Amino acid sequence: MTKIHLNGRLVDACEARIDPADRGLLLADGLFETLRAYDGRLFCLDAHLARLAAGAAVLGLPAPPLPEIAAAVRDTLAANGLADASIRITLTRGAGPRGLLPPTGVTPTLMVAAYPLPSSLPTAMSACLASIRRNEQSPLSRIKSLAYLENILALGEAAAAGYDEAILLNTAGRIAAGSRSNLFLVLDGVVTTPPPSEGLLPGIARHSVLALAAEHDIPARVMPVTPADMTRASEAFLTNSLLEVVPLTRLQDQLVPAGPVTGRLRRLYRDSTAAP
Amino acid sequence: MTKIHLNGRLVDACEARIDPADRGLLLADGLFETLRAYDGRLFCLDAHLARLAAGAAVLGLPAPPLPEIAAAVRDTLAANGLADASIRITLTRGAGPRGLLPPTGVTPTLMVAAYPLPSSLPTAMSACLASIRRNEQSPLSRIKSLAYLENILALGEAAAAGYDEAILLNTAGRIAAGSRSNLFLVLDGVVTTPPPSEGLLPGIARHSVLALAAEHDIPARVMPVTPADMTRASEAFLTNSLLEVVPLTRLQDQLVPAGPVTGRLRRLYRDSTAAP
Repeated sequence: MTKIHLNGRLVDACEARIDPADRGLLLADGLFETLRAYDGRLFCLDAHLARLAAGAAVLGLPAPPLPEIAAAVRDTLAANGLADASIRITLTRGAGPRGLLPPTGVTPTLMVAAYPLPSSLPTAMSACLASIRRNEQSPLSRIKSLAYLENILALGEAAAAGYDEAILLNTAGRIAAGSRSNLFLVLDGVVTTPPPSEGLLPGIARHSVLALAAEHDIPARVMPVTPADMTRASEAFLTNSLLEVVPLTRLQDQLVPAGPVTGRLRRLYRDSTAAP
Repeated sequence: MTKIHLNGRLVDACEARIDPADRGLLLADGLFETLRAYDGRLFCLDAHLARLAAGAAVLGLPAPPLPEIAAAVRDTLAANGLADASIRITLTRGAGPRGLLPPTGVTPTLMVAAYPLPSSLPTAMSACLASIRRNEQSPLSRIKSLAYLENILALGEAAAAGYDEAILLNTAGRIAAGSRSNLFLVLDGVVTTPPPSEGLLPGIARHSVLALAAEHDIPARVMPVTPADMTRASEAFLTNSLLEVVPLTRLQDQLVPAGPVTGRLRRLYRDSTAAP
């Protein structure tokens, strides 16, 4: 029986009840985080919790109880007998009366669920450009809010065309990110990824890759990139907490070799997830 | 005891259970409609249902069962003993497994709730420009999806500054709409409101106002408008299904008189909601 952690208690998922008046459901008024457990170790938990707290500040939610959330994550893993898992933390403003304006005095909803990993994760991916643009002028483009419908539509469009991922441009026509990943290009030998100001979520895996590059003297930079840069890149890869570092070997109709820089960062990332 | 209609059944709101795996909650993967009942008559129900169906097509949801939804709305009103009410219809893609890509074969979640009207509705409103821009390049800007968080942030910002409503510009810097209303300006004697391509939800009340203007020979047009137009407007008003037609009498620091065109459209709209 799958257990989830809901508002301080472990409950059977099939009995857990979300209030129909929850503003997370009605208005996407909330946040989430997805992280991965490796043999029971929660990879970059603190970074995920810090991002959740930063998102809560943007939405004007009460500061989330981070130690309690960390304990809930561990309890959920244990209750489901999972050591390797993907974990989702969902935080909403809670159930409120009718109306758009956030009510005062409501209790946020906190939910933690853990899932077994898929039997296999991709070792290479293809991507196309999405028709939907990300709004780099919105603060929501830089936090992991529940308003994920644009990403769903973009990914659905890519899947229908036979691609694994959709790359979204921003309204200025520059590259933002994948529907559920950050994009890195190797340009003139330098690992390059755009800054959050381009309208993208600063992924925790993205941050790890940048840190690993710095630590291992792999030239890297954060800089706006364009679709033309994508075409001329010698290598490309995607990152997220579940997929880690995955070579992007087909960009629209263009084949890109899975090159040495990607391979090296993929190994370094893997190594960083292993027990110390 | 408040009753809501959930997946084909009337249930006590305090017992109604939304599945924690509902994609409406997790990813804002769904739609809603808000309409008003006048003495038991559902104002523009067909237009609301048509907009819901159009939104479902954009999201790739199954075509919603409109006659069943209409019946659920009537049943919900009756079960709560309400004749004058605001009604919310919520339709999500339903509960699904982990992951962004819409699963196949899931059953959408359909929920109808009815609320008594507030004891008073405003007869004039103030508004300021929001710092958040609407993305007119996204199809979501033109449908009533659950991804409403931008509107919440914009309204919260306006309320904190002492205004009743936030007017959102689009990424091109032209006027889109209010956080929960459409904006009309009277410019050179002509009632003017921007087109959906500017990044706004085509409101049902907005449509009614345009139809009433045409019917009563009040000059009206659908045309992009700018913040400068707002400053030079001789009258301004907001529309939505709950508020009807409300004079906008303060725009940032500028006072705007509640003029004769607004007054006339307000009365015509009111009259159109009365029993035939």
